[in-house]
Amino acid sequence: MSHRLEAQFAFLNEADRLKSVLRATTLVDGSRPENSGEHSWHLALYALILADHAGAGVDINRVIRMLLIHDLVEIDVGDVPIHSANGTAHASAETQAAEARAADRIFGLLPNDLRDDLRNLWEEFEAAQTPDARFAKSLDRVQPVMANLMSGGGTWTTYAVTSDQLDARVGTKIARGAPALWDWVRHKTRAYFG
Amino acid sequence: MSHRLEAQFAFLNEADRLKSVLRATTLVDGSRPENSGEHSWHLALYALILADHAGAGVDINRVIRMLLIHDLVEIDVGDVPIHSANGTAHASAETQAAEARAADRIFGLLPNDLRDDLRNLWEEFEAAQTPDARFAKSLDRVQPVMANLMSGGGTWTTYAVTSDQLDARVGTKIARGAPALWDWVRHKTRAYFG
Repeated sequence: MSHRLEAQFAFLNEADRLKSVLRATTLVDGSRPENSGEHSWHLALYALILADHAGAGVDINRVIRMLLIHDLVEIDVGDVPIHSANGTAHASAETQAAEARAADRIFGLLPNDLRDDLRNLWEEFEAAQTPDARFAKSLDRVQPVMANLMSGGGTWTTYAVTSDQLDARVGTKIARGAPALWDWVRHKTRAYFG
Repeated sequence: MSHRLEAQFAFLNEADRLKSVLRATTLVDGSRPENSGEHSWHLALYALILADHAGAGVDINRVIRMLLIHDLVEIDVGDVPIHSANGTAHASAETQAAEARAADRIFGLLPNDLRDDLRNLWEEFEAAQTPDARFAKSLDRVQPVMANLMSGGGTWTTYAVTSDQLDARVGTKIARGAPALWDWVRHKTRAYFG
């Protein structure tokens, strides 16, 4: 038990570093960049509140767990803003390899049973093929859209994003897991871009 | 649906403000105060990783939901550090009334069904009478202990806390929901206090 607890807390203490990984997106009030720890909390809350937009067969408890751990690899790799030059293309083989190494190291701190559970959950999120992962990905894409709308442009201004680029880069992914949600948000983004 | 989504996002955008509520506890690396948004994420991760320390009858998915929303009233009321003069006594009637008003306002932004669900979940956490709430409270108490141990004293230094005071103020509450966890942590706090 003692050895198991040492491993559990080695992981939980390491996870604390996600609070120091900064994203391109700001808080809703625009006061500072959001970090990936508080972002993960906000997304889990999104899942809890927007569960009625999940498609058939979605287990919202699994979605919440997925969102709690989805960004942990950023402790080693950092966040790649979606509208940046590296964010809009598919992730390079190099980035994917770096994230896999980060997952090996970070989930590897855990006892083997938890290591395997969380690693599988993270890989499911990344692959975005199951209903749970698709809904989780939709929420991960819609939250920065709301932050940009609330803060008056945010990363759309930083990266000179157009309405069509937003639809292509973000909208298609939100629509895949939560189509009615994207319909509603799109009215707002269209109004913003004018 | 549109009216419901407006209410859901009014709440989610308001919740963003929890990222600007600062706690007395610092990050594990001591670099800055922790905010209540990232704290809520870390606690939900604690629940996921330490689920094997939950007592009989604990539903870990409910514990995670409880921890995701447990601090939202701090948007209006702020955080009261447990070792501060106001934190060590039982919450005053005034503080309790202020928190109830905050819950009315913040959960009141939601559609009625979600408002009632989350308000009940928050009240269950506050009352600390059910197995789920007791385990959630234990995690809420153990996480700052680990941060203080890792950062070399933290709020124990700030508030000149003794080992006996820690046992009385924090240990009894951790032991109530997770006794084996407190046994293990207590070895470490005893070693710290020497």
